[in-house]
Amino acid sequence: MPQTRKKLLFLFDFISPYAYLGWTQIHALAARHGAAVTARPVLFAAMLNANDTRGPAEIPAKRSYIFRDLLRTAAHLGLTLVPPPSHPFNPLLALRVAGLEMDEETRHRLISALYQATWGGGPGITDPDVVDQIAQDVGVPDALARARQPETKQRLRTHTEQAITDGVFGVPSIIVDEELFWGYDSFRNLERHLNGTVVLDDALFERWTNLPAGAQRKRS
Amino acid sequence: MPQTRKKLLFLFDFISPYAYLGWTQIHALAARHGAAVTARPVLFAAMLNANDTRGPAEIPAKRSYIFRDLLRTAAHLGLTLVPPPSHPFNPLLALRVAGLEMDEETRHRLISALYQATWGGGPGITDPDVVDQIAQDVGVPDALARARQPETKQRLRTHTEQAITDGVFGVPSIIVDEELFWGYDSFRNLERHLNGTVVLDDALFERWTNLPAGAQRKRS
Repeated sequence: MPQTRKKLLFLFDFISPYAYLGWTQIHALAARHGAAVTARPVLFAAMLNANDTRGPAEIPAKRSYIFRDLLRTAAHLGLTLVPPPSHPFNPLLALRVAGLEMDEETRHRLISALYQATWGGGPGITDPDVVDQIAQDVGVPDALARARQPETKQRLRTHTEQAITDGVFGVPSIIVDEELFWGYDSFRNLERHLNGTVVLDDALFERWTNLPAGAQRKRS
Repeated sequence: MPQTRKKLLFLFDFISPYAYLGWTQIHALAARHGAAVTARPVLFAAMLNANDTRGPAEIPAKRSYIFRDLLRTAAHLGLTLVPPPSHPFNPLLALRVAGLEMDEETRHRLISALYQATWGGGPGITDPDVVDQIAQDVGVPDALARARQPETKQRLRTHTEQAITDGVFGVPSIIVDEELFWGYDSFRNLERHLNGTVVLDDALFERWTNLPAGAQRKRS
C-alpha cells in the first residue's frame, strides 16, 4: 500500500514579510519530510479584527523592530528582502488571484512571483495591471475578471473564516496533522513535529487550558 | 588594555513563559561570546497598555497555541515547563523583589528560583510568604519590607518606562550594542549579531522607516 504524503497547509497573506520568509523555506522543509505543500491565501486583517488586537506593523516600536529582525534572518538565508512601495497596502486583489482555481504547481509559481513583486524588490502588488501581468506570465489568464467574481471573493472569506475557526491568528501558519505552527520562527518546532521527536504532554496542555486567571490587566 | 566584556541587558517579566525559556538559555549564550548578563525586571502589562494592544494570553486562540509551542521547545531543551497555579497572575511583588539592590550573582539565583516557582512546577509567586522564603533562601533579607518601599516601586516603573522609551514592546527583550532582540526566538539572530556575521543594510531600514502607508485596516 503506498504511503500517503503528509499535506502541509500553508496559510499566508502577502502583507506579511514573515510569510514571505516562510514561503521561501517551506518547500525545502516539506521535501525533507516527503510532505506536500498546499498554499492557501487568507486575509490577515480579518484575524486582527476577529481578535480585537493590533498587527506588528500597527505598533510603531514593533514595526521598527521587525524589519531589523527580518533583515537579519534574510541575510542569514541569503535572501533578498526589500520593502514594497507602500506598507501596509491592500492585498485583496492579489489574495483573490492567488486563490483562483488552478493546479498547485501553477499556484506555487504565481505566489512566488507575487511575493517577488512585494518583498523581493519588485513594484508591489496593488496595481491591477501588475497583478494581471504576473498572472499571465505564469499561465493564469483572465485573472482580473475572475478575481472580481463573487465566488472568488467568497472563497477568500470562507478560507479566512475557516482558518480563524481552526485557531489561526496570524501568518504564516502551517497546519499539519491538525497541529498549528505559527510564524517562520515555528519552523524548527514544525520540523521536530514531522520528525516525531517531540511528544506533547496532553495533561500539561489540559492544565494550561483550564487554568484559572489570578489577575487581569487593567486596560488603560 | 583588557577588553571590556559586552553587556547583555535582559528585560523580563515572570508572567512570560518565553522569558522563562530565555532566562534558562541566555547565560550559556552570553558565555559563548564572553558577554555578561544584567537582568532587569519590567512590567509587561505596562507595555501592552502603552501600545494599546493585547498580550498572547489575552487572545484565546493564541493563548492555546503558545503553550503547545512552549512545550515543544521545552521538550527540545530538556526543560521542565509546568503552568503556575494561575495565569495571568499579578507579578508585581516578585518583580519588585527581583529588582532590589543586590549583586548580580545573587540576583541571578533569585530570578532562577522565582522562575522555578512559576514555570518549573513550583507553587507560583503570588503568595508573599513564598516570595519571602525564596528571597531568604538565596540570601536576600527583608524582601517584603523593602519591596513595599516607594523607591522600590518607583525603580520598577522607571525601568519599565525606560524600556518602552528604548523601543521595547515585549519580553524577553535583550539589548546589546543599542540593538534590540525580542523573544526567545530571536536568540539565533542575537548570536548572529554577536558573531558579527550579519551586517544590516541601513539604507533598507531607512526605506522601511519612511515608507508610506498604502492602506489602513478598518478596525471592526
